Amino acid sequence: MNIVHTVQEVRQIVKAWRKEGLSIGFVPTMGYLHEGHQSLIQRAVLENDRVVVSIFVNPMQFGPQEDLESYPRDLEHDAAICEETGAHLIFHPEPEEMYLPDFCSFVDMNGLTKGLCGKSRPVHFRGVCTVVNKLFNIVGADRAYFGEKDAQQLAVIRRMVRDLNMDIEIVGCPIIREEDGLAKSSRNTYLNELERKAALILHKSLTIGKRLLESGERDANTIISCITEKINTEPLAKIDYVDVVDALSLEKVDKIERSVLVAIAVYIGKTRLIDNFSFEV
Amino acid sequence: MNIVHTVQEVRQIVKAWRKEGLSIGFVPTMGYLHEGHQSLIQRAVLENDRVVVSIFVNPMQFGPQEDLESYPRDLEHDAAICEETGAHLIFHPEPEEMYLPDFCSFVDMNGLTKGLCGKSRPVHFRGVCTVVNKLFNIVGADRAYFGEKDAQQLAVIRRMVRDLNMDIEIVGCPIIREEDGLAKSSRNTYLNELERKAALILHKSLTIGKRLLESGERDANTIISCITEKINTEPLAKIDYVDVVDALSLEKVDKIERSVLVAIAVYIGKTRLIDNFSFEV
Repeated sequence: MNIVHTVQEVRQIVKAWRKEGLSIGFVPTMGYLHEGHQSLIQRAVLENDRVVVSIFVNPMQFGPQEDLESYPRDLEHDAAICEETGAHLIFHPEPEEMYLPDFCSFVDMNGLTKGLCGKSRPVHFRGVCTVVNKLFNIVGADRAYFGEKDAQQLAVIRRMVRDLNMDIEIVGCPIIREEDGLAKSSRNTYLNELERKAALILHKSLTIGKRLLESGERDANTIISCITEKINTEPLAKIDYVDVVDALSLEKVDKIERSVLVAIAVYIGKTRLIDNFSFEV
Repeated sequence: MNIVHTVQEVRQIVKAWRKEGLSIGFVPTMGYLHEGHQSLIQRAVLENDRVVVSIFVNPMQFGPQEDLESYPRDLEHDAAICEETGAHLIFHPEPEEMYLPDFCSFVDMNGLTKGLCGKSRPVHFRGVCTVVNKLFNIVGADRAYFGEKDAQQLAVIRRMVRDLNMDIEIVGCPIIREEDGLAKSSRNTYLNELERKAALILHKSLTIGKRLLESGERDANTIISCITEKINTEPLAKIDYVDVVDALSLEKVDKIERSVLVAIAVYIGKTRLIDNFSFEV
């Protein structure tokens, strides 16, 4: 497995693979890889001849008050995980390689980015769209793999790829959880022991919402109220949002008549965590 | 030569060419082709094995008060020009093929799009960036050809391609003029006989500016004043802008110390025309 730092190196390697007729899978990450990322790499290895993993903490998707500086990084550990999972190339650029001093272009969208996480993170999806667009252009893969934990991100990227006619297949992969149900996230590392226990409230409250839906409840506000109530039983938890939205348009839903996404964002202490499930009617 | 209307058809044809190892040149146009476009196609034919011309009057780059409806169209004539100039494929999509009803993504930039034409056409370059981004992704060419008449468009597209790491070479081609000096433009067809004569003032005034620069004048305001004064001798002309800007950043320049673009936009009656020249110090 190779680790490269420049756009030119990635292009050179991928073009050589292309000449051999090999198919390319791509897993874009911000590093500090856990079993969630690993499941994406595994799937990519299964479905492609060669797999590229990018590790880049993208400054453009962090707001001024967010955790860009403190975001956890461990390239050595990440490289070991990529190697053992069967990836063939890590692309690990410096911010200067991705953003020249007079960089001024961006990719953004109306609609899908305004609700859910976009509400409290107004610049986030512009940063995500722009860097993913760049990475897709740099790597030129056949397929890219994203976790369903970041459900809005996945919907936004699918839309960008469709709208801009990008020639790549987007594969969404199931959320990977700790044994007790907490969704795996690089940000879980911020939690102290008490907070780690409190963080279970995300999964617990969603489970209640899911059971309600499965038992036939179709009123979105009832689902939202029950989830909200459950989260509020946890003193360390502070709700950012609890929403039921259309799975494709991400628009709020009153009556649940087609596929929906039930998504929540909750602060546990100072750490903002997200979780969700999809439900097909 | 083939004419196709869907993204899928273009992709299929271009991928077959790729398999044969052929290089692809691309000339994006809004149709109503004149000798300016023809010079782009000629150059593309010289430098590539296969040449794709797109003909698409892109609604997204017209403002609400602009000439989307009246913009001239003549596919039969365009196809004849493409054929005789040696193009291999015309892509002529309907707006519905390019923009689905829930289309919501866009490509835009800060900086380069604010001055010059961006001032009086605030949504124009977002529309241009988005459609050109889409077309590049659809065609997947090695090189794309643009006229230097739309100097700001050329600078914006170069910047987009660089910033978003699009794997395509942008080739700028010289302005083609009528015998009397008027820059070729599909919009010249709007001019009546009197206006057609009046429109010469664009080229005449720029020629004065160019001579001043060649004779050593380095003060941008002096150049601007002389051009403005000349244009104002023409009763049918109304200035939109006369500017001297840095050739790369398109930022206004006071002292001319490096390569600059001298660009003007002038209404002749109701028709807005543009022209420019570059000057290397």
